[in-house]
Amino acid sequence: MTKIFKFDERGSKLDIENGTVFAPKFDSDGLIPAIATDAVSGELLMVAYMNKEALSLTLQTKAAHYWSRSRGKIWKKGESSGHTQPVTEVLTDCDQDTIWLKVDMSGQGACHVGYRSCFYRSVEISKTEPLQPELVFNQVPKVFEPDDVYD
Amino acid sequence: MTKIFKFDERGSKLDIENGTVFAPKFDSDGLIPAIATDAVSGELLMVAYMNKEALSLTLQTKAAHYWSRSRGKIWKKGESSGHTQPVTEVLTDCDQDTIWLKVDMSGQGACHVGYRSCFYRSVEISKTEPLQPELVFNQVPKVFEPDDVYD
Repeated sequence: MTKIFKFDERGSKLDIENGTVFAPKFDSDGLIPAIATDAVSGELLMVAYMNKEALSLTLQTKAAHYWSRSRGKIWKKGESSGHTQPVTEVLTDCDQDTIWLKVDMSGQGACHVGYRSCFYRSVEISKTEPLQPELVFNQVPKVFEPDDVYD
Repeated sequence: MTKIFKFDERGSKLDIENGTVFAPKFDSDGLIPAIATDAVSGELLMVAYMNKEALSLTLQTKAAHYWSRSRGKIWKKGESSGHTQPVTEVLTDCDQDTIWLKVDMSGQGACHVGYRSCFYRSVEISKTEPLQPELVFNQVPKVFEPDDVYD
């Protein structure tokens, strides 16, 4: 049975950066960003957010759970589509305000739009005046045609 | 001379996800998270935040600029240490609320604590009761001994 961890109080900057006490920084909405990369290829797949419950569930079940800001509920990645994200490693950064998940993305893809990675477009500055950034699609095909329930 | 882009209005979900209009989502503090990876190895180096000015500067100068939340000012990565981050590609994700920079991290490291990557610790659940997460240092050495001004 899973439990929601209390997590530790955040100590001094030195403790947070150099210690072994896990004290993740949740923002004013109670969320921390979580980056998922492919455990094998290292490819950056997606960025989502976790609350304490999602992080607790992820650590205990070794399946990626996020907090869906649009739906306002816990979101077990792939729960309806079947394309879950088994987690092989959970890391955090120096100031402990980001989570990094290495996941076994064995399904079709992480992105509900139909791509393996959510990062299927690059930002470039237009060659014509007035100079503005614009998006250019990467040369990677969709890997599936998503339906409305793809998660 | 650099300019601060206005960026586009955010249109429909379909436009944001499938279009070529760059309309990044800045949060209520005017910030968007930015992930930096090593352009060659793909290693995840750091996560920081950008405001419109930092993103504009990054796109135009091809050197990573962030907004330092702790110092409340624009932060050209490596400006004082010399270990800048020349940017080879800028990407965004499906809902355009994250920026991904591929950078030429040629200096000692991205992390002011002295590691090449800010993610030098993994999160594990303690083997002893009461079950709590704890941090374990990765088997990667520091690459330098930072001084107070390392940026």
